[in-house]
Formats: sequence, C-alpha cells, structure tokens
Amino acid sequence: MSKYDAIRQAALEANLRLPELNLVLFTFGNVSVCDRKLQAFAIKPSGVAYAELDADMMVIVDFNGQTIEGELRPSSDTLTHALLYKTWPEIGAIVHTHSTYATAWAQAQRDIPILGTTHADYVAGPIPCAPPMAAEQVKGNYELETGHQIIKCFTDRKLDYRQVEMMLVGSHAPFCWGKDANKAVYNAAILEEIARMATLTLQVNPDAPSLSDALIQEHYSRKHGPEAYYGQ
Amino acid sequence: MSKYDAIRQAALEANLRLPELNLVLFTFGNVSVCDRKLQAFAIKPSGVAYAELDADMMVIVDFNGQTIEGELRPSSDTLTHALLYKTWPEIGAIVHTHSTYATAWAQAQRDIPILGTTHADYVAGPIPCAPPMAAEQVKGNYELETGHQIIKCFTDRKLDYRQVEMMLVGSHAPFCWGKDANKAVYNAAILEEIARMATLTLQVNPDAPSLSDALIQEHYSRKHGPEAYYGQ
Amino acid sequence: MSKYDAIRQAALEANLRLPELNLVLFTFGNVSVCDRKLQAFAIKPSGVAYAELDADMMVIVDFNGQTIEGELRPSSDTLTHALLYKTWPEIGAIVHTHSTYATAWAQAQRDIPILGTTHADYVAGPIPCAPPMAAEQVKGNYELETGHQIIKCFTDRKLDYRQVEMMLVGSHAPFCWGKDANKAVYNAAILEEIARMATLTLQVNPDAPSLSDALIQEHYSRKHGPEAYYGQ
Amino acid sequence: MSKYDAIRQAALEANLRLPELNLVLFTFGNVSVCDRKLQAFAIKPSGVAYAELDADMMVIVDFNGQTIEGELRPSSDTLTHALLYKTWPEIGAIVHTHSTYATAWAQAQRDIPILGTTHADYVAGPIPCAPPMAAEQVKGNYELETGHQIIKCFTDRKLDYRQVEMMLVGSHAPFCWGKDANKAVYNAAILEEIARMATLTLQVNPDAPSLSDALIQEHYSRKHGPEAYYGQ
Repeated sequence: MSKYDAIRQAALEANLRLPELNLVLFTFGNVSVCDRKLQAFAIKPSGVAYAELDADMMVIVDFNGQTIEGELRPSSDTLTHALLYKTWPEIGAIVHTHSTYATAWAQAQRDIPILGTTHADYVAGPIPCAPPMAAEQVKGNYELETGHQIIKCFTDRKLDYRQVEMMLVGSHAPFCWGKDANKAVYNAAILEEIARMATLTLQVNPDAPSLSDALIQEHYSRKHGPEAYYGQ
Repeated sequence: MSKYDAIRQAALEANLRLPELNLVLFTFGNVSVCDRKLQAFAIKPSGVAYAELDADMMVIVDFNGQTIEGELRPSSDTLTHALLYKTWPEIGAIVHTHSTYATAWAQAQRDIPILGTTHADYVAGPIPCAPPMAAEQVKGNYELETGHQIIKCFTDRKLDYRQVEMMLVGSHAPFCWGKDANKAVYNAAILEEIARMATLTLQVNPDAPSLSDALIQEHYSRKHGPEAYYGQ
Repeated sequence: MSKYDAIRQAALEANLRLPELNLVLFTFGNVSVCDRKLQAFAIKPSGVAYAELDADMMVIVDFNGQTIEGELRPSSDTLTHALLYKTWPEIGAIVHTHSTYATAWAQAQRDIPILGTTHADYVAGPIPCAPPMAAEQVKGNYELETGHQIIKCFTDRKLDYRQVEMMLVGSHAPFCWGKDANKAVYNAAILEEIARMATLTLQVNPDAPSLSDALIQEHYSRKHGPEAYYGQ
Repeated sequence: MSKYDAIRQAALEANLRLPELNLVLFTFGNVSVCDRKLQAFAIKPSGVAYAELDADMMVIVDFNGQTIEGELRPSSDTLTHALLYKTWPEIGAIVHTHSTYATAWAQAQRDIPILGTTHADYVAGPIPCAPPMAAEQVKGNYELETGHQIIKCFTDRKLDYRQVEMMLVGSHAPFCWGKDANKAVYNAAILEEIARMATLTLQVNPDAPSLSDALIQEHYSRKHGPEAYYGQ
C-alpha cells in the first residue's frame, strides 16, 4: 500500500481510455493524474504499450519533475506536465495525444475557429494554437520549454486555463487538462471531434463564419458557470 | 406500471441506437418518442451517458415542455421537441444529434444539394439549412426559439414536414423526425450518409450538378407515395 | 429441396458480405447470383434488412425479370440485373451498392482515372461512369433502362465486360459483377477502395498523372490473362 | 522441424498484424522476415487470404529469389524483397502494403513533407517518393527493377536505409523495413498515420511549413541515436 495508489490507479484507467477512444496509435500519448495534497502526480512510463500497462508501472513524480516512486522511466513529456501542475493550481489531470485531426491543426499552425455550437459547448472562443517553439527553446530543456510555451500562449492571449482546457502546440500536437482524469480525457476526445468537424466545415464552405457572440455565450453558459442547466 | 411505459421503453431503445450507428460522441444527442393520445413524449435525461440509461430514467413531458413524470431533468433541448410535437401533428419521434458530417454542413450554413439518387430516395430536394438564430432569439427562450426557427424554415420554403423529415439548424446541428422512433433514428443515419456523400462528391467535382427532376421524382416515388414499389 | 437452393444460398451469403465489408448502410444494396443452366438468378428481396435475411427469402427470377419462385417482392433493381445476365453471357453474379466513395464519383459524374497500380491490378483503364439517365429513360421502365445505360456505356466505349467488371451509373451508384458471387462482391470492395484512393490522391495532387501504359499492362497482366503469375 | 521454422513463424505473425492494423484489404500486402545467418527469408505466399495463412505456407527464399523450401508460389513481389536483403545488410524484415493514405501519396508522386513532430519521431526529413518506374524497367524483370528503383532513390538522395525505414514507389505504394518483423510492421503503421496527418494538415493549411531543423533534430534524437531518452 502506498499513499500514491489512488492516482496510480486513476492514471492507469485514464491512459487505457485513450486507445478505447481512438485517440492514440501505439504509444502516442500519455495521461497524468495529480494529487494536490501530496504535491505529486502519476504518469505513464515512457514508450510502454497500452496493452502492457498496469498500475504499478505508473511513475510518481513531483512538480519539479523528480521521480518519487517507480521503477520505470516516466514519459518523456514529464517536465511539461510538471510545469503545468506547478503553474496552474486547479488542474487535476493532463492528457497529451497525437490524435489525428487535432494534430493536423497543430501542424497547420492554425487556431481552430469556433464554427458551431458543438465547439461553444466546451470553449467560448477559438482553440488556441501556440507558435512552434523557437530553436533556442528546443535546444534547451525541450519538455520544460514546451510547458512554458503553453503557459505563455495563455498569458499572452489572456486565456483562463479553467475555461479553456485544451490547446495545440504548433508543429507538435494537442494538450488537454481538467479538474480530474475523466474530464481531461473527455476534453481530449472533444477536441479531436471539434477539430474533425472544423476540417469538414471548411471543406464544405471555406468562408464559413465564426459563431455569433450570442450563440457562443448561450451554449457555453448552458454547460458552464452559475446558470448552467445542462446535465443533472 | 404506468401508461407511459411504452414510450419510455421506445425512447430508451431509440437513444441506444445512436451510439450503435456512430451518430453520437458521449452525450451529444437525444431522441424523444411521442404518444399522441396521451399528449406526451418520453425524452432522454440531460447529460446522462448512453451506457447508463435505463427506461425509468426517461422523462415524460407534455407539449408545453412541462415534466409529467420522472426524477431527472429532461434534455436541455426539450422545448424544441415539445414545440415540434405541438405544431406538427403527425410526428411520432424526434432525433437530435451532432453527427459529424451533418453538423459540418450546418456549420457551413449550406443546404445539402441533391446530388444523387441516394438522397432522392429520402428527400425530393435539398436538405434545408435554417439560418443561424438571431441574437434576440438566442437571448430569449433559446430552445423554444430553436423550434420556431425549424418551423419557420419549413413555412418560408413551403416544405411539408411529412415529406422532408430532416434538416439542419445553421451553426448548430441536425434535427430529424418520423412517424415513429425507428423511422426518426433511421433518418438521422441517412442524413449523416447523405451529408458524407455530398462532401466527397463536391471534393471530386466542385461543379457536380443537381440531380435531374426526372430522377428526383422517380427515386422519391419508388419509395414514397401511392405508387411506391420499394420494400415488401 | 429445389434446384434453385444452391443459388439461393450463394445469394444469401454474398448479400451478407456487403455489411461485413462496410459497403452498405441499412438496405442500400443487393447481390444476385445466376445459374446459367437454369436461366435464372436468385436476388435479395426488396427492402429487407440484412440481419433478417435467410436463404428462403431470396427470390428466383428469370432473365426477363419474371419471378419463378419466392414469396417476397424481389429487389426493385431486378430488371437491371436481368438485362445484364441476358446480354452478357459470362456473368455469374451482380452486386449493386451505394458504397460511399464509389457513389461520390458517380454523383460527381466522373470516370475514376487510373492513378496507380492498385487500380491496374483490376482494370486496365479508367473505371467508366455512364452519363446520368435521360428523362425519357427515367420515365419509361426505369430499372430496365438502367441496364441499357450500363450496356450502352460499354458498347460505346468498346469495353469488354469480362475485363472491366465494375462501373458507375452517373448520379446514381456503382454496379459490379464477376464470374461468381465471390468475385462480384470482391470487385465491389475493390472499387470502393480504388475510389477512396483516387479521391485522396487528387486531394494531395490535383494534377496527379495517369499511370503509364507500361505499368498498366504489367500490373493487369500479372493478375489476368495467359501469363498471370499472381496467386496460386 | 526445420532451421527455417523461426522465420516462418515470425513471418506468419507479422503478416497477420497487417489486417489487425487496417493496413490491407484482402491480400494487398506482404511481409517477409530474414535470417542473416541462413541467408534466407520467409515470405507470404502469393494471393492467399490472411485468414487462411499458417506458418507452413510461408515460402523460404534465398537472396537471389530462389525458393529453398515451400509448396506454394511466393509473393509476386519476392524479387523486390530479395534485392533489398542482398543490398542492405542490416534489414531483418520488409513490409509492402497498399495502405490507403500512403498509397495516395505514392500515386500523387509526392514526397511526404515533414510537417510535425510525429513525423520527426521516426524520420528526420521527408518520406521519399521514388519516381514511377520507366517503361524499360517495367518491361524487364519488373519486381527486381522495383528493388533497384528503391535502392537508386536512396543512393541518389544520399539517404541511409537504417535511418529512413519507409518510402514510396511512385504510382505504386509504400515499402517499409526494420531490424526485425515488429519494427517493420510498426513502421508500416506509422507511415500510414504520417501520410494521413500530412493529407489533413495540407487540407487545413495548404501552405503549412516544414518543421524547423531544431525540432527535427530534437524529436529524432529523442528516440534514436546515442542520446535517446524515449522508452525504457
């Protein structure tokens, strides 16, 4: 028994959801789950196939990226996760995938425009795409700098990470998060579907306009905030 | 035992068909089933995962949108369903999804042109896309106004809801209906396939012409009307 | 026991392959299987779901389209099948689907150009798309005229139905055939994949050239004709 | 018992992975697995359905393409495999498929540009597309010439087959390889996903730029070479 067992189990289950939701090929993705009281998170070990994962393989890491418990090397993206947990105090889980449509938008280096109510049910504006990382960042501590790139994008654009729980790193792929593992994985699947719908919408009408402010506010507030009336 | 058990069961089964037919991700959709004699319909509860649904969770609602029986909050789209049942007396079931291709056309704010016989087997003209709702509608009773937007689209274009059982609300997503639950769910799947074929057709040939009137009439009347000879 | 049992069973199995190969939604398709000695073919009944089919439901029809045995109404496309069997003596089975990509090309009213060796393994030139049927044909005996449209396309272009076993009827959908049921169903799946590859190829390079004559001849003759060396 | 049993079994398992990974339709593909000490490889028999394969059916062939053991005719592409084994001493397995997106790029006769880190995790530059084969090559020993076309492409472009383990033959389809069967099949699936992401990226942004040199080097060296830190 370890005080980290709960997040290890949650991280295992969340990682296994990624192939179920068709969000990963082979080992293209990782989920971490955080315990704020313990100031630690459990993350997938690097390069291990989903089919071979068990809870004991999850690596326990602190917010500086140091391994606390675990035999295996943590995900190569661990420092990105660590910095996000350290900087954004209300995140409980982080998901990184290379899901096909979201990654295509990251590679296209475009924000995903808000084209319909499906999008507005989750995010009240475009899904931000941070610029590709500069050479000096890449040559430095790459994964830590990836975290800085994500945070800088939100700071520069005055976005609140509690309201926009998904984004793209240009030339790379999406990162999503949420208050817990279920929400973070849910957001990763929603982002993939939003990206797919946007791709098809612009194929059908390259001049499709953005959703009106009124519809954005209505749909976002139906699901979020004090007057939400969606769900039970 | 309740007099509403039959529509509760029908609504459960119809809702469960949506994920089977790949028409919904998570909780993106809802089906209601109506009993005209009881002047009531059974509808999916809001935000409940399909895997957790059972018949007792279905909410019984009258044509003004008031809950008659049920512990849970009905779908947030309930007033849209209620208005359609109230206005169009021959509808027995309504399906709302955010299925990917149909939603892309709604977001593109385009009617789906009639490009082939597959389309004409179901609808004898374009699939109408109502304009996005105006700010004053959205800020009013949004879901009731969505119903008005659908009905206004049919009135303005002189369409008969018994002949055109599927449509798009611009910037939002599709609504389908039919004389019973099977037909309404069937229509939702047909619409998604028509939307997908139209997307691909225009990719292959952006100038693909509309189907000729002769073929429209032949295919539509093979399946519908007094001289139909399709089926048993 | 009936002398038609063998083709009834073969037609059942071939029809059931269509949903397995993702070539049909609901009842969008039909296969017939012919016995040349009996001058008859077995065909799917009209509008019956694949999951409900059994061999006894297959309808036995002669080459003029008259039902010989069977309780149910045969496929609405029966006269098309009958005319092809009557005109082309070496066909043993016919498949009609509305498979998505092949139908998109039919709706686009374009021949599928021969863009690679995958295509040349089966057909040594473009997949022909017959023009949409004229109003007078449609208003006449529509399904019989569909057969005439297919045959006229092959005659006009000097194509041999034994070498080109797949085609598109403009604005409508594909028809495929072969010496037996397995080959005809196989061809329907191959056509769908060729159509999908061609769609994507032209997306990646709208000016993608046709395959060279040398590669067409090599690949086609690897699999067909006296010097074939593919297979066992 | 035969000294070739190990490669026969490995070849069987690798071939069966192709349909599992959705890389082949019917018999569109083949895997061979090599034993360098025995100077021989096991390859799929020509035109046999994956569902019917067993290890005994694998054909044992030497590096000149002569059958050593086996009742069946080897894959029609055997001479291509043989030449690659003979020329490139560190290859342990070869996979040839007609997977849809990779084949579309081959038919488009375009290198797949390096648009993101997913690509750079495997190959540090574009995926090369060799020109379509010239008429004289096709009319000669076609499959042997296909091998020469692949090798010439690598020689002309100064590519190292140990670093670039996947390529396209223009107008035809992809070839992949690796140190063993698992890696070669893995590469075939990776190539298909890279091709799909590139197709979608250019759809979203036709001017999407290539990945920066810094990101190429970082991602490639994270997974490859002396300072790799991905995996266990």
